[in-house]
Amino acid sequence: MQTILIIGAGKSSTFLIEYLLKTATVKSRTIIVADISKEVADKKIKNHHHAIAAKINLDDAESRKTLVQKSDVVISMLPAFLHPIIAKDCLELGKHFFTASYESEDLRKLQDEINAKGLLFLNECGLDPGIDHMSAMKIIDHEKAMGNEITSFKSYTGGVLAPESEDNPWKYKFTWNPRNVVLAGQGVSRFIRNGKYKYIPYHMLFKRLEKISFEEVGDFDGYANRDSLSYRKIYGLDQIPTLLRGTLRRSGFCQSWDVFVQLGLTDDTFEMDLPQGFSKREFLNSFLPYSETQKVEEKLQEILPWVNNEILEKIQWLGLLDDSPLPKTKGSPAAILQLILEEKWVLLPEDKDMIVMQHCFEVKTPKGTKRITSSLICKGENQEATAMAKTVGLPLAIAVDLFLDGKIEEKGLLIPVIRNLYEPILNLLEKEGIIFQEQEEFI
Amino acid sequence: MQTILIIGAGKSSTFLIEYLLKTATVKSRTIIVADISKEVADKKIKNHHHAIAAKINLDDAESRKTLVQKSDVVISMLPAFLHPIIAKDCLELGKHFFTASYESEDLRKLQDEINAKGLLFLNECGLDPGIDHMSAMKIIDHEKAMGNEITSFKSYTGGVLAPESEDNPWKYKFTWNPRNVVLAGQGVSRFIRNGKYKYIPYHMLFKRLEKISFEEVGDFDGYANRDSLSYRKIYGLDQIPTLLRGTLRRSGFCQSWDVFVQLGLTDDTFEMDLPQGFSKREFLNSFLPYSETQKVEEKLQEILPWVNNEILEKIQWLGLLDDSPLPKTKGSPAAILQLILEEKWVLLPEDKDMIVMQHCFEVKTPKGTKRITSSLICKGENQEATAMAKTVGLPLAIAVDLFLDGKIEEKGLLIPVIRNLYEPILNLLEKEGIIFQEQEEFI
Repeated sequence: MQTILIIGAGKSSTFLIEYLLKTATVKSRTIIVADISKEVADKKIKNHHHAIAAKINLDDAESRKTLVQKSDVVISMLPAFLHPIIAKDCLELGKHFFTASYESEDLRKLQDEINAKGLLFLNECGLDPGIDHMSAMKIIDHEKAMGNEITSFKSYTGGVLAPESEDNPWKYKFTWNPRNVVLAGQGVSRFIRNGKYKYIPYHMLFKRLEKISFEEVGDFDGYANRDSLSYRKIYGLDQIPTLLRGTLRRSGFCQSWDVFVQLGLTDDTFEMDLPQGFSKREFLNSFLPYSETQKVEEKLQEILPWVNNEILEKIQWLGLLDDSPLPKTKGSPAAILQLILEEKWVLLPEDKDMIVMQHCFEVKTPKGTKRITSSLICKGENQEATAMAKTVGLPLAIAVDLFLDGKIEEKGLLIPVIRNLYEPILNLLEKEGIIFQEQEEFI
Repeated sequence: MQTILIIGAGKSSTFLIEYLLKTATVKSRTIIVADISKEVADKKIKNHHHAIAAKINLDDAESRKTLVQKSDVVISMLPAFLHPIIAKDCLELGKHFFTASYESEDLRKLQDEINAKGLLFLNECGLDPGIDHMSAMKIIDHEKAMGNEITSFKSYTGGVLAPESEDNPWKYKFTWNPRNVVLAGQGVSRFIRNGKYKYIPYHMLFKRLEKISFEEVGDFDGYANRDSLSYRKIYGLDQIPTLLRGTLRRSGFCQSWDVFVQLGLTDDTFEMDLPQGFSKREFLNSFLPYSETQKVEEKLQEILPWVNNEILEKIQWLGLLDDSPLPKTKGSPAAILQLILEEKWVLLPEDKDMIVMQHCFEVKTPKGTKRITSSLICKGENQEATAMAKTVGLPLAIAVDLFLDGKIEEKGLLIPVIRNLYEPILNLLEKEGIIFQEQEEFI
């Protein structure tokens, strides 16, 4: 009898739990789903007789370790900064550990001990990071095996709305953590293009876009995402002249979003303490120059001359030109903006989200240079069964399933960039409908 | 016999030391000048027989406290983050403490103890902060005493070049800490204008300028400086509808500087690690989009369409379009830019710097609304005897002198916004040629 402990039973655990429950009986496995709210955990296990819902209090080491002790494998779906707590328990008690989050410095410090104990600590096995690594490495390893040289690799991912649910002027709703969406792109983005290092500060990011198209679902804006340079090493492409990772938004979104960036509404570095009853319009106005005669709309178009009526309508649609009071008056501009957006960008019960991913390679072959485009489109079913939850949860579920079945034998602190991991996982993802469409053309 | 300990004998201590040495004999005072370099301290005391040069090692508590113990009053001219070390020694040994830096949270924590021991800890008694507070409070207190209501107060200060030394296209050289100049304005600037809160993010700061003119030395650009809102309380103007503090640069400087801000060259949040031999031109290019056909100059003007030939010439003059190698290849963009600028913006031996300060008040009186403009122009003598050193050092020297003469009797943790402090200090500053010109007109 094998036991899997899943910690965190939020929306993104839905498909993960479902996948593992499906074979729990036939594979004689017990699934413990632990959450700070036992009620939430209860809901997810749906009275499955091989599943147990548990309440977990992370501050209580004893109850935490009692749960970990009972298990063979632990999956942490907690916010990333909490992973080290669980990872240390797993190390102490000799349990394998899986997450969909970035491998952190804290985990790297445990590497020697993980190896010494012969455990598998697998991170970055969700969507991005996760499916992006696996699908890219499949192509990279294949081309290398053919003796070809990859000269350019650009990879874009976006969590957006399915076209049929794009029913507001922004064609966007929150399908994932709203705070991360509001802060997306902050810092300096770094990549390399034709051998030239490139750095884009945040306030330039939403102006330096690339158009990325999908036959089935149309055009998107791609913008560079944080530090692409470090991926040269991770992907074994140390000398590649062009490497860029980016984020996708529906065409037109970025230019409108840039209004907030330019004015300073996405700033999260200081706290505003505004008078009670301060309106949304006054909030917007506080980022515009003073004028005795000009209206907010006029000042906005004067300070950002590229703001056309279409963009202005989007801002109006969000309520930012209204005299209605702010949802809160104390907090960073980003935190206040987030609440304003959350009132409007609500995923309705029938709304479908969508994951779009596209890898674009340029590869030198003996027959000339070819361009490989590998695209993934994955649509959600509704507000609960989202494509985000599916693409984050399934790779993790499959990895754990394969591991317990003995089909993954790797040990150590890993991410799924090695063939023994990505190949079986990608094959099983295909069966779940997560399928990349590949195109090749010589250029 | 009174003893004054001055810690830090750099350029900005020149006038401070000189002022106190002048009367040391007649007032039977000993001046100890302590520096990490005894040589630097020696140079400053010029064999004065009432002065002693000492070497100080801040890490060695015993030698530090021996110096403090010998003194009645300690003046710290160290970088601001080091003040708390000396302040705590002074508190322990019952010595009075003076600086030209902002009163810090660390010092505020000592307030009760300072009061209990009956000591004076006077901060913000230099230029900005210092002379700005004092000259403003003189007008504020005067207008209040007349029963008038101040409705607007804007105050600008700049450390620039005297017109006769403006011999490069930027009309600027480093007359003060280069790092602070490169990072100036980072964060979000906050102020209030006609009762409206206003917030300006860094990347908008150098576009939102106000023209500030001086009859004698011409026009400057003023930009908003950090958190002006907190000064409503400090100046006793809690309900004032307009309060803004700003920085001055020669007209045209800000628009050109904005090129660096927009491209990301002033970013200090991440480390670049560029290849050996990377040129200045390549450094600039790394912040511009990739192009197979366009030159750096063309890309710059495409991405920032307001970059005219005059601005381009300024950038070229700095060497940023040259193929010569970077002065260093590892460091933040701001640190690398600073070194490039330091090669060019060097104050020559005969160069004169200049301090410009202007307060603009609007005051409601029974006879109507009047505008008060109070302006200070102070020119340096040469590379060493700068206006910056004069305006930072003299207020502090005068305050200490008055205190030891028994003409300042205040105690506690203070800044010079109270009449018993600012009035005698301003009077003595006038004798040193630091004189504000006031103009009043009804509007």
